[in-house]
Amino acid sequence: MSDELCFTPATELAAMVRDRRVSARELLEAHLDRIERVNPVVNAIVTLDAEDARRRAAAADEVTARGGTTGPLHGLPVAHKDTHLTGGMRTTFGSPLRADFVPDDDELVVERVRLAGGVRVGKTNTPEWAAGSHTFNPVFGATRNPYATDRSAGGSSGGSAAALAAGLVPLADGSDMGGSLRNPAAFCNVVGLRPSPGRVPSAPQLMAWADLSVQGPMGRTVSDVALALAAMAGPSRRSPISLEEPGASFAPPLEAPTRGLRVAFAPDLGGRVPLDRAVRDVLTGQAAVLEELGAEVTEDCLDLDGADEVFATLRAWQFVTTYGDLVREHPDQVKPAVRWNVERGRELTAEDVGRAHVLRTRLYQRVLDFFDRYDVLVAATTQVVPFPVEQEYPTEIDGQVQEDYLQWMRSCTLVSATTLPALSVPAGFTPDGLPVGLQVVGPPRGDRRVLEVGYAYEQATGHGRRRPSLSSSRPGETAE
Amino acid sequence: MSDELCFTPATELAAMVRDRRVSARELLEAHLDRIERVNPVVNAIVTLDAEDARRRAAAADEVTARGGTTGPLHGLPVAHKDTHLTGGMRTTFGSPLRADFVPDDDELVVERVRLAGGVRVGKTNTPEWAAGSHTFNPVFGATRNPYATDRSAGGSSGGSAAALAAGLVPLADGSDMGGSLRNPAAFCNVVGLRPSPGRVPSAPQLMAWADLSVQGPMGRTVSDVALALAAMAGPSRRSPISLEEPGASFAPPLEAPTRGLRVAFAPDLGGRVPLDRAVRDVLTGQAAVLEELGAEVTEDCLDLDGADEVFATLRAWQFVTTYGDLVREHPDQVKPAVRWNVERGRELTAEDVGRAHVLRTRLYQRVLDFFDRYDVLVAATTQVVPFPVEQEYPTEIDGQVQEDYLQWMRSCTLVSATTLPALSVPAGFTPDGLPVGLQVVGPPRGDRRVLEVGYAYEQATGHGRRRPSLSSSRPGETAE
Repeated sequence: MSDELCFTPATELAAMVRDRRVSARELLEAHLDRIERVNPVVNAIVTLDAEDARRRAAAADEVTARGGTTGPLHGLPVAHKDTHLTGGMRTTFGSPLRADFVPDDDELVVERVRLAGGVRVGKTNTPEWAAGSHTFNPVFGATRNPYATDRSAGGSSGGSAAALAAGLVPLADGSDMGGSLRNPAAFCNVVGLRPSPGRVPSAPQLMAWADLSVQGPMGRTVSDVALALAAMAGPSRRSPISLEEPGASFAPPLEAPTRGLRVAFAPDLGGRVPLDRAVRDVLTGQAAVLEELGAEVTEDCLDLDGADEVFATLRAWQFVTTYGDLVREHPDQVKPAVRWNVERGRELTAEDVGRAHVLRTRLYQRVLDFFDRYDVLVAATTQVVPFPVEQEYPTEIDGQVQEDYLQWMRSCTLVSATTLPALSVPAGFTPDGLPVGLQVVGPPRGDRRVLEVGYAYEQATGHGRRRPSLSSSRPGETAE
Repeated sequence: MSDELCFTPATELAAMVRDRRVSARELLEAHLDRIERVNPVVNAIVTLDAEDARRRAAAADEVTARGGTTGPLHGLPVAHKDTHLTGGMRTTFGSPLRADFVPDDDELVVERVRLAGGVRVGKTNTPEWAAGSHTFNPVFGATRNPYATDRSAGGSSGGSAAALAAGLVPLADGSDMGGSLRNPAAFCNVVGLRPSPGRVPSAPQLMAWADLSVQGPMGRTVSDVALALAAMAGPSRRSPISLEEPGASFAPPLEAPTRGLRVAFAPDLGGRVPLDRAVRDVLTGQAAVLEELGAEVTEDCLDLDGADEVFATLRAWQFVTTYGDLVREHPDQVKPAVRWNVERGRELTAEDVGRAHVLRTRLYQRVLDFFDRYDVLVAATTQVVPFPVEQEYPTEIDGQVQEDYLQWMRSCTLVSATTLPALSVPAGFTPDGLPVGLQVVGPPRGDRRVLEVGYAYEQATGHGRRRPSLSSSRPGETAE
C-alpha cells in the first residue's frame, strides 16, 4: 500500500491530503520508507533530514486539522536540487569546497515551495557545480538510472529525475542551462520543464539579469509539473526579470486542445544534430501519434543558425563570471569541465558577448516568424539513450565524434539559446527498455502551451506510467 | 487663439477632439502655424511633412465623424525623435551617413502612437547617434533652448523637449540611456519619463535584451506623459523583455497620494555629484514643498557604489556592439564621442561585462532594501543649468573638472545604472530665468509611482506653466 502512495500523482496526493484521506505524516512516512529501501540503489537523494521533515509534515497536519491549507503543495514531500540553497540544510553544489556548507536561508524557489505547503525531505544529487548532463561528483558519487542502474540518470538535475522515477518523492525541482531539467527527465522517463526566463524567478543571484540558466519543476506527470510550477512561478521584486503572470494561472487541470494544433516535427532539429538510431526509431513514430490527436504535423524546424555560438558564448561568459575567482583560488579542487568553461570565458571580449546578443536577437526574430506558422516545435530531448554510468559523456553519436562534454547535448543547448520554454515528456522505450524523451518547444513565454501539448501527448501515450523494475537494497527483497 | 491650443495640455486636447470641440485638422493647423513661426528660432523639428500630417488628421476626423475614436491619442499631433524609425519619413540619427535614410516601416513605439490615434507631424533633433546630452549634429545643427535661445536644450531627446516647450507639439517621444529623456526635460521646463526597461517595448532592436537604453514619452505635464505612456506601454511579443502590464493602466487621471509619502531627499545623490550653486539653491527649497504636501522627507540616498562602473561598462559594451562596424568603416564620419565610446568597448573583456552585471546585481539588492524604507528618491535631474549652445558640454561643475562628455550627466547616468524608473519634473527657475528639474526615482517597475508623485508635486508648484518668452522668427512679430 505505502508504495502505491509513492507512485500516485502529486495532483492526486494533494487532493487526498486536502480531503484528509491521507495525512502529511503518513505520506511522508511512506516516502521515507521507500527512500530507505531504494535510494541506496540509485543514489538520488544525497542529504536527508527525516526529523525535520516529520516536524514540517506535523505542522502541515495541524493546519489541515484546523480546516486550513498552506497552498497548492500542502503536505507533499519535495526534494530540492543540491545547487538550491536550503535554510539549515547542507547545500554542496556537488563540490568538495562546499561539502559542509549550510545556508541560513532558503533561496526563493525553495521558499516558494515551502510557502505553498511542500514538505522538504532532502537534497538531490547534481554534477559538481551542475556542469554537464551526467550526475556524478566527488562528494556523493554518481546517481544511477532507475530504469537501468548501470546507466546514467542524466543531469544536471539527475538526482531529482531519478528520485521521481524511483518513487522517492512526488515532486522535485531543478535548473536548466543547457538541458539540465530536460535531459534527466528524458533519461528517467519523467517530465521536466525548462520554463521561460523569469517564469520561476531566482534569488539571490550573482547576476540577476542572466537568463541562460533557469530554475523549474520536475514530476512524473505533466499535471504534477504544472502543479509545482503554480507554486514556483509568479512575479517577485527580488528578481528584476521575473514575469508578472501569477503562478496560480498554471495550476492544473490542464486542457488538451490538439485539434488543428500546428506541430513542426524535427526530431534531429532539421538535420542539425545526430541521433542514436534507437532514439530516432522511437521518435519517428511520434508524428503519427500527434496526427492521431488531431494535430497538423509538418516536417520543419526553426532555423537555428547562430544558436551554437550564442550558447557557447553566453555559457562561457556566465561561467567565468560565476566561477572565475573559484578556479583562480582552488584550481585543483574544481572539475576540469568547469575550468574549461572558465578558460573559454577568459578568452572572450566584450564584443564577443555583444555578438552573441546580436545573434540571439536575429534568432528571436526568426522565432517570431516560426511561431506565426506553428504552435509548437517537437524534437528529441536527448540525442542518445542513457549511457553507462561510468562514462563521463558520450564521445560518439551515430558515427559522429563529440568534441567536448557539451556537444552531445546540442538538442537541448540549441533550444536554450532561443530562450524558449521547453518540456520533456516520456516518449517510450527502446527495445532494450531505455527511456526516450520528446521535447516540446513553445513560443516566447508559452509555458502554458508546452504543458498543454505535453499533457495531451501524455494522455494519449501513457509512457510515463511504466515503472522501473528496481531492486530494493534491503536484503531479501526483490524487484517490485 | 490658435497659440492657446498650442499650450493646452494633451489630456485636454484629447477630450476636446473626442467631444468635437476641435477637429484634428484644426489642431494640426494651429501647430503647423506655430511651427512655421517658431521652429526656425529653436530648430527642434528637423523633418516636417505637413501634407502627410494633414492626411492623417483628416483620417482621424473621419473616424470622429463616424462617432469613433482611434485610441487615447486620437487626433493629437506628435513628433518623434529622429532616432526612431518612421515609415516613409526620413530618419537620420543626426548622422551624415543616414542623412537620406527613409525607413519602410514604423518601429514599434512609433506604430503604437499611430495606432493610438497620434497624428505624426515630423521628427525632432538629436545629437549624432544620440550620443551626449546636448543636441547638435552635422546634419541639422544645434537645437536651442526655448527659455534662453543662446543655451542648450539638453539631449539627446533635446528636439522633443524644445518642441514641447515651444508649443510646437503637445506630445513627443525620446529615448534615454544616460538621461536623454530627463536632462532635456529639465533644461526645457517640461516632463520626461525614463520608464523601467521593457515598459515601452522597443523593436526592432540590434540587441533585444539590452536594457540600458529605453524609449519613453515627454510632455508639458505629468498627466500628458501618462497619457502618452498609456499608448506606448504594454506587452509585445516583438520584445522579449517587455513587461506584461497593459498600457491602459497608466492612463490619467493620476492620483496624488502624498500624505505619509516617504521621500529620500538627495539633490546631489548623497554628495556623489557636484551641483551648480544655482541648481542647488533651487532644489534645496523643494524639501519644504514636499513636506507641505504631507510627505515625510529624510535626507538620505541609495548607496550608488559601483553604479559608475556599471554604466560605463554597459554603455561601452552597447556602443561597440552597435557602432563597432560603423566606426571601422567610416571612422571620419562618426562623431568623436561615439568613437571614444566604441574604443572603450573594444578594451573590455567578457569578464568586465560580467563584473558590471555582478555590481548591478549588488546595487539592485541595495535598491530593494532602500525602497523598503522609502517610496521615492528625489534628486537633481541635471547638475548644471542650461549651458551656452556653442559649448559641447560643461567642463567644470562647482569647481570640479568634468573629464569627459558623460561626467556632467552622472545625476542621470547613476540612476540609469540602477534600472529604476525616473521622472524629471519642472522644479522652478534660477534667478536668471533658467529652468531646473527635479528627478523622482521610483522602485523597480514603479513607473506609476513616479508619475503620481511627480503629479502631486506639479499640482502644488505649477512651474511647468511658465511659458518661454520666445521671439517669433517672422519679421515684425515680437515676443509672445
